[in-house]
Amino acid sequence: MEYLYILPLPQANRCFGGKILTLRVALFGAGRIGHVHARSISENNQSKLVAITDLVPDAAQALATEFGATSMSANDILADSGIDAILIASSTNTHVDLIEAGIGAGKAVFCEKPVDLDLARARACLDGVSGQNNQVMIGFNRRFDPDFDALKSAFDAGEVGKGELLSITSFDPGPPPLDYIKVSGGLFRDMAIHDFDMACWLFGAVPETVSAIGSCLVDPEIAAAGDIDTAVITLRFADGRIATIRNSRRAVYGYDQRLELLGENGLLSAENVLENTVRKSTVEGVSSAKPEYFFLERYMRSYGIGWGMFVDAVLDGNPVPVSVADGVNALAIAEAAVLSLAQGREIELAPLLTETV
Amino acid sequence: MEYLYILPLPQANRCFGGKILTLRVALFGAGRIGHVHARSISENNQSKLVAITDLVPDAAQALATEFGATSMSANDILADSGIDAILIASSTNTHVDLIEAGIGAGKAVFCEKPVDLDLARARACLDGVSGQNNQVMIGFNRRFDPDFDALKSAFDAGEVGKGELLSITSFDPGPPPLDYIKVSGGLFRDMAIHDFDMACWLFGAVPETVSAIGSCLVDPEIAAAGDIDTAVITLRFADGRIATIRNSRRAVYGYDQRLELLGENGLLSAENVLENTVRKSTVEGVSSAKPEYFFLERYMRSYGIGWGMFVDAVLDGNPVPVSVADGVNALAIAEAAVLSLAQGREIELAPLLTETV
Amino acid sequence: MEYLYILPLPQANRCFGGKILTLRVALFGAGRIGHVHARSISENNQSKLVAITDLVPDAAQALATEFGATSMSANDILADSGIDAILIASSTNTHVDLIEAGIGAGKAVFCEKPVDLDLARARACLDGVSGQNNQVMIGFNRRFDPDFDALKSAFDAGEVGKGELLSITSFDPGPPPLDYIKVSGGLFRDMAIHDFDMACWLFGAVPETVSAIGSCLVDPEIAAAGDIDTAVITLRFADGRIATIRNSRRAVYGYDQRLELLGENGLLSAENVLENTVRKSTVEGVSSAKPEYFFLERYMRSYGIGWGMFVDAVLDGNPVPVSVADGVNALAIAEAAVLSLAQGREIELAPLLTETV
Amino acid sequence: MEYLYILPLPQANRCFGGKILTLRVALFGAGRIGHVHARSISENNQSKLVAITDLVPDAAQALATEFGATSMSANDILADSGIDAILIASSTNTHVDLIEAGIGAGKAVFCEKPVDLDLARARACLDGVSGQNNQVMIGFNRRFDPDFDALKSAFDAGEVGKGELLSITSFDPGPPPLDYIKVSGGLFRDMAIHDFDMACWLFGAVPETVSAIGSCLVDPEIAAAGDIDTAVITLRFADGRIATIRNSRRAVYGYDQRLELLGENGLLSAENVLENTVRKSTVEGVSSAKPEYFFLERYMRSYGIGWGMFVDAVLDGNPVPVSVADGVNALAIAEAAVLSLAQGREIELAPLLTETV
Repeated sequence: MEYLYILPLPQANRCFGGKILTLRVALFGAGRIGHVHARSISENNQSKLVAITDLVPDAAQALATEFGATSMSANDILADSGIDAILIASSTNTHVDLIEAGIGAGKAVFCEKPVDLDLARARACLDGVSGQNNQVMIGFNRRFDPDFDALKSAFDAGEVGKGELLSITSFDPGPPPLDYIKVSGGLFRDMAIHDFDMACWLFGAVPETVSAIGSCLVDPEIAAAGDIDTAVITLRFADGRIATIRNSRRAVYGYDQRLELLGENGLLSAENVLENTVRKSTVEGVSSAKPEYFFLERYMRSYGIGWGMFVDAVLDGNPVPVSVADGVNALAIAEAAVLSLAQGREIELAPLLTETV
Repeated sequence: MEYLYILPLPQANRCFGGKILTLRVALFGAGRIGHVHARSISENNQSKLVAITDLVPDAAQALATEFGATSMSANDILADSGIDAILIASSTNTHVDLIEAGIGAGKAVFCEKPVDLDLARARACLDGVSGQNNQVMIGFNRRFDPDFDALKSAFDAGEVGKGELLSITSFDPGPPPLDYIKVSGGLFRDMAIHDFDMACWLFGAVPETVSAIGSCLVDPEIAAAGDIDTAVITLRFADGRIATIRNSRRAVYGYDQRLELLGENGLLSAENVLENTVRKSTVEGVSSAKPEYFFLERYMRSYGIGWGMFVDAVLDGNPVPVSVADGVNALAIAEAAVLSLAQGREIELAPLLTETV
Repeated sequence: MEYLYILPLPQANRCFGGKILTLRVALFGAGRIGHVHARSISENNQSKLVAITDLVPDAAQALATEFGATSMSANDILADSGIDAILIASSTNTHVDLIEAGIGAGKAVFCEKPVDLDLARARACLDGVSGQNNQVMIGFNRRFDPDFDALKSAFDAGEVGKGELLSITSFDPGPPPLDYIKVSGGLFRDMAIHDFDMACWLFGAVPETVSAIGSCLVDPEIAAAGDIDTAVITLRFADGRIATIRNSRRAVYGYDQRLELLGENGLLSAENVLENTVRKSTVEGVSSAKPEYFFLERYMRSYGIGWGMFVDAVLDGNPVPVSVADGVNALAIAEAAVLSLAQGREIELAPLLTETV
Repeated sequence: MEYLYILPLPQANRCFGGKILTLRVALFGAGRIGHVHARSISENNQSKLVAITDLVPDAAQALATEFGATSMSANDILADSGIDAILIASSTNTHVDLIEAGIGAGKAVFCEKPVDLDLARARACLDGVSGQNNQVMIGFNRRFDPDFDALKSAFDAGEVGKGELLSITSFDPGPPPLDYIKVSGGLFRDMAIHDFDMACWLFGAVPETVSAIGSCLVDPEIAAAGDIDTAVITLRFADGRIATIRNSRRAVYGYDQRLELLGENGLLSAENVLENTVRKSTVEGVSSAKPEYFFLERYMRSYGIGWGMFVDAVLDGNPVPVSVADGVNALAIAEAAVLSLAQGREIELAPLLTETV
């Protein structure tokens, strides 16, 4: 028997007056990311997956069986007063309608990113939910990655003083299928949008201007589809701080996800998470494991943590940590990057956020 | 929505002819390590925690409530033909009796290390279960640590050729309470026993001789209790291979758990797992996170993986990966280390394993 | 006695027909960087420092005494047929005149960077020496840094395939005095120019366009002097390859000099050189040494190696490894960066290199 | 021109009353290690290589020509009052005689390790020079390695508190020729002797007992020659501190030279020096450079630094940093290790240092 006098295990349940609180949740979308969220909901002590809906009823039924939930229609879910929250993991074009419907039905809403591919529509959604903005959470899961969170905590604690130059590296292990590329909204709206949110989150502000440089280097079919696969986007904030983002659709060694933040008193960096800690030294050199392969490996913990923060916020009546406004900000930066790439110049962000489009 | 065409999620259940197989398990011991195992049993798709027993009935009941199991007496568990397996997480002095009772009752047995503190008694237990040795698994969980497993896989695949010199570093973050030290069996039987098992496992053999050097440097009260807190043990195998183990009861920076294996064609090493990947560079230097604090953090995954291998072996009718004989070997090395320290010489292991004690 | 059967020591001298060849060199400029070069000349087996000149004759005399050379006037040096080569380490505004004078006097010329702060004047110099371009070397010493050279060798050997995205980090430990800033030509011409040369060298091409974003964050006096201290410059090459450069005048942890090159088959990176390899693990974390403090520490070896390559090229009658044209290219990129920052748009490089200014 | 206002260059010469002091040195032994020392002597501002002697006069003459010295007989050197110091780099069996002759002739002496292969003879030498022990330096060059020195400085500054467990890794890249093995004195006297000195130096004490485990795993011809090639030696000090040394004649990835020192408040470690800082990430993993190949690469700086400390000590009239007594201590530990390996028990060191052999 190990001696075990040191470490408490986590408390299993949060109680108010002896009553165990549980959020009853319905899931929209039984695809792969729906599966990921079904797990997060089930593994959280304070939430219970009670219903699932999908355009393909068999898919909803299969997932419901696996997780002990019920397959229901979307309308029945919205009408069910026993359901406290909905998690939207259906296709992007359904997000805005479902957010509005969920809010209208009095439910807390967790919605996968992005709010929408169309900035005007996303801004209208924000206007529509503005009173309830704090109860709609957008799933920018990277904010909940433990390594990035440790970096932000150190930064917010002043460990390197005022931030000056933020650098985000975000390379996918390989490009998605062309069919996906064609409906993705393009690299900026689909892939870099995570990085735009990271920059705003870390600096606690939206940038003043956006500059983008991009190329198609990985696969000429991507250019033929009107997109790029390699880009550098640079954001300038009102106080002069700069954030630069490097994106590629292909890093054959795995998912490259790193942060560097230069401040007046030093540099904070978050390195990749490697598959294991083993190193091998031979006549050929010293080799170690690759970064974890892709977002399901690297960010699996972040999905559960982000979900937990949503549950906590809703149960405690606090604002959720990522609002619809955050989703709109990231989308506006993507829009500005599109314009910058097309026009070869810095684009001001404010008009995209505030003026009639 | 992320694109999700690449990664399959793990299969949820193993089926034979459409039937989902599940091992029904009873847990002996509702203390802290019992809690850890209750989680592993519950989180495994193929096992179900049905009963818990403990000398303190309230403790059994509380854990049973948390995990949806039933509090039962030990005798009722052993008599219940609906229970397939028992997990022994009670105090060390009960291990041998419960192993024998479990085997006698026709159940598969998973028992926490060590088999016993007394080598003669452990050897007698091995004799008693010898026909069923392959269905009793001893909980040397470090074999299932993903990093150590990756090192062993690389070694077994011949990536550095024949092994020559194995080095195991195993430092605890701090010493246990003196009350624990006094009943622990001493550093070799309590702490180094894991490392002895690691050496046998990695080299696929038991050593020929054992040499131990030890001191009390951390706390003189440990010496007053008849124990040491700092040691180097060196094992020599029949073919000349050498394994050396460094132990300390105190490494203030956290749980230091590393392996190095020099082979004819190179070196394999498994480094510590750090709390996060953040680095900070300031005028004072470059700093990074500490190793994970202690065994619950570092080896939590290994408990679940080891349990899964036990479940798989039992369901498939295969030998378990760590046998009672493995437990006896590690204990015999500990006994030899005790003798070596007392006598200032190398001790041959064979008599301890084979001769009448 | 160590056994010493394995390693040959380097040959001390290169001989042709038994004759030891030595380049006789005169140094222009006896300041600090002149001192560095005096050492490189003296420590090289194939070169001999014979003469030194400086606007301050006492400085020339002191350095001459230390290195066993003679203090001479510039004109006498140029007229001395026993002097094979001149090394120009005087102030930037003298470079062009001395290059032209040296070439006119039939001497090989090694000139510190930059060619000039004025692009038109540098282009005129290039035109003037064009027939002898291959015998005038510009001192972009970072090309000779062993780590960067190892990265380039791996890249040129095709180890990561076609290059796609190059990232250069270049942070100084602290800003120079304001008096220096005011005559430096600005961050792009003074500091980033090294990085512009690195990008051209690594990709073997000059970029098509230049985009620059910059701020003054370190010291408002720098802004008052009309300069910036923090910048991101992004270069786009004709075939779509991208290089991005991050500059800061202040990284309090030391001189941060790194390269990353993403190619179709992987990533090459050159990390900082640390002051030592010692790591300390305590309750506060794991700490290691800082990067070497500044360019004299980090690049001291590169000065000697670069000088050696000049000597080899001249003695063997081969082209020098860094030409005046390389110096003009880097300066033109700096000029484009200045324009980009002022105009908020991408600047095409070709007109700056080819059109009448 | 770089701005150069920050870093002073090192002072070229130490002066007393305007007079530049220089140690005039004769070198015994013109072999490979003699060549290394000739360079150290020549590159030091305070020493001048004036004479060289060797059993092979042509070798002495060639080296003398290269370094501008004179080939002389040993007797003439000893009789030459213009020679201040001798450096003994001839074969081991000549060391004691030359130390005694040098001291007898009133010269400062720097002698390559070991003092002798025979402990009795080394002890007699120590007795003979005891009055001048402080002017004879033994060339344990690893003490002057900048990384090891940084570790010792941190330790001596109390950064990890009281030392408890020291671990030294010392693997050669490959075994020496058998002809060398046969006359080497064996692994303990030839190879581990450096590590014995390191342990005494770091802990500031000689150990109380020595335990050694060894095997021949690399090449059976080494066993046939009566030697081992793989060993673990553990030293116990009077106050309970422990040092453990791992030796192998073959680490195919390069010269593996590391230190780890566990103290009450943390761990200090000195990692290997790698050939360069480049890392490559591909589908096969992340690879980096190997450790520097062997002692000439890894410890080249240490030869120069150690020589500089000898010169400083002699010129300033201070004790040299490594005495003959240090050389005898290391040799006695080697002798104890030989006995321990033969007898399978811990050996007390004191009798080997103090009793009539």
